[in-house]
Amino acid sequence: MESPSRLKIALDAMGGDFAPEREVAGAVEALRQSRNAFEVVLVGNERSIQTELTKLDTSGLPLSVVPASQVITMEDSPTAAVKTKKDSSLAVGVRLHQEGKVDAFASAGNTGAVLSASTLILGRISGVSRPTIGTFIPADKGVCLMLDAGTNVDCRAQHLYEFGVMGSIYFSLMRKKERPTVALLNVGEERSKGTEVVLQAFELLEKSGLNFIGNVEGRDILRAKADVVVCDGFVGNIVLKFGESVPRFLKSRMLQYADRSVFHKILVGIARFPLKGALRDLDPNEEGGVPVLGVNGVSIIGHGSSSVKGIKNMVLRAAEVAATGLNKKIEAALSAVPAGSEGNQ
Amino acid sequence: MESPSRLKIALDAMGGDFAPEREVAGAVEALRQSRNAFEVVLVGNERSIQTELTKLDTSGLPLSVVPASQVITMEDSPTAAVKTKKDSSLAVGVRLHQEGKVDAFASAGNTGAVLSASTLILGRISGVSRPTIGTFIPADKGVCLMLDAGTNVDCRAQHLYEFGVMGSIYFSLMRKKERPTVALLNVGEERSKGTEVVLQAFELLEKSGLNFIGNVEGRDILRAKADVVVCDGFVGNIVLKFGESVPRFLKSRMLQYADRSVFHKILVGIARFPLKGALRDLDPNEEGGVPVLGVNGVSIIGHGSSSVKGIKNMVLRAAEVAATGLNKKIEAALSAVPAGSEGNQ
Repeated sequence: MESPSRLKIALDAMGGDFAPEREVAGAVEALRQSRNAFEVVLVGNERSIQTELTKLDTSGLPLSVVPASQVITMEDSPTAAVKTKKDSSLAVGVRLHQEGKVDAFASAGNTGAVLSASTLILGRISGVSRPTIGTFIPADKGVCLMLDAGTNVDCRAQHLYEFGVMGSIYFSLMRKKERPTVALLNVGEERSKGTEVVLQAFELLEKSGLNFIGNVEGRDILRAKADVVVCDGFVGNIVLKFGESVPRFLKSRMLQYADRSVFHKILVGIARFPLKGALRDLDPNEEGGVPVLGVNGVSIIGHGSSSVKGIKNMVLRAAEVAATGLNKKIEAALSAVPAGSEGNQ
Repeated sequence: MESPSRLKIALDAMGGDFAPEREVAGAVEALRQSRNAFEVVLVGNERSIQTELTKLDTSGLPLSVVPASQVITMEDSPTAAVKTKKDSSLAVGVRLHQEGKVDAFASAGNTGAVLSASTLILGRISGVSRPTIGTFIPADKGVCLMLDAGTNVDCRAQHLYEFGVMGSIYFSLMRKKERPTVALLNVGEERSKGTEVVLQAFELLEKSGLNFIGNVEGRDILRAKADVVVCDGFVGNIVLKFGESVPRFLKSRMLQYADRSVFHKILVGIARFPLKGALRDLDPNEEGGVPVLGVNGVSIIGHGSSSVKGIKNMVLRAAEVAATGLNKKIEAALSAVPAGSEGNQ
């Protein structure tokens, strides 16, 4: 790294649904907000990026461009695309990080492809069987981190145990909380409940030294009964997408109610304000992005539909995570395999 | 049956959290509403039931009492309780049905115990591997039936296929819709997505002759993209309980918003009306109950916390289901095992 005092973040400028416009604008906002606390390397089609840069005031900003001729789209098959599109903005960006030229990578592109590229190019941390992605879910009060959020659909107990370890460390670093509570997502609180895999994971987590509080149910997520909620990616993905659909459902129901009469319409018009205010933090743009946990590096994934604010927060998150000792903590925790574990597979 | 022209419904008078008060009152309301279209047999502690009956006007109602000395509580282990508490209101009621003395049974008691008693005493329909319970989920417009809702946590592909068949028949009968759409709950729409079990279930459902539309995602439930959504009981239970927690989450967030100022409090006060109006049908008391699908009989399960209205609707539902040819249709559909199926296990 040329400037060890200032972190460098590579941003996949071609990643999101509105790339490169929002990517470039988000990078500029992140630098302005952080007062140039880090540098941003925009990776992608040089001409398109320059076009966007000329629309903005970038004077004094530590921005640079690394060209990449290809783009991985949302329709591309993740693993295949990473292998065939070697000059994609995604692959080039992750390689910059692997080569030590930047300290973190961030993309709002194809989630599966970001995961694949990060795992293939950066490699896994020693002791990690499967890299994972979590998601912060806003609760009554506070927030909980649910993981896996869709990366690994078929999981063994050892994987769930590792998700618990990595989730606990990430939650602790991001939310400044020592020993966050960790729970297994299950169909009941009793330890006899659940699938074979979940029953085995319960035993591993119980012996793990984590602040494991046992099982929580679906109803406990939105009240953050545990800080970290562990599940396989099949359940996690379905719960997450179900939850994301609730605001649209509410809106649709309110509009149907408004259609009953002018009076109903007025009531709904008024109700919009408290509803929006009360649910403001359900917007994923607030969090910006989450890291691929378990890879040798910092690779942040954002929503494909991120707003400029979402991209800005994703870049800020990348810099924040790069400044922590996340991966060293994960390696240290997982090198101490718990008694009775089936080992790392 | 003494009176073949009028159906008889056995009601577990000791089942719900507020039994026998709400059970007795609900039975009376069901008879009033249906103008004595059926008879109700109240099963449970005779003295308690009589005490409740004296509080109400029961003149002219076809109500009778069958005594049962024991009660299965919510804390009882389902399978054990059914075996040890042979004179429980639940076991006695299901036996009345098995012996042909009533045409249906209904209980708002311990769900696992109702399932166990129904399976053990009534037996399974030929061709059914595992009885299942579904749940109707209100959507933007209309409703979808998700099953399994928590009964079978570890499922094989054959089980998911059977849930699809039984769900399709039940939806068709209750919602008067020919060939309802059936889908697999999955992490993506592409047929390559999902766990090994789900991939196999996709193939069975595709060949089944059902109106199978492929995979739906978590976000598709609340917009009823399919009439019948098939999943294992692990996912189903978690999604269902997550969904049930949304109204409380909304309420809690609105109260926090109201705490900001008097003005905010007024806005929230107004917003309560359209919210309640728009979400009225989220109340499980509207549906009353759902049958244990796949057993040789009609056994309806209601919510433990059912209101009097919930009990009333459960009894009405029992009479409605008993009047359909539900089980004959299930047997006919599952005796035609699809090509490539692994058979009934």
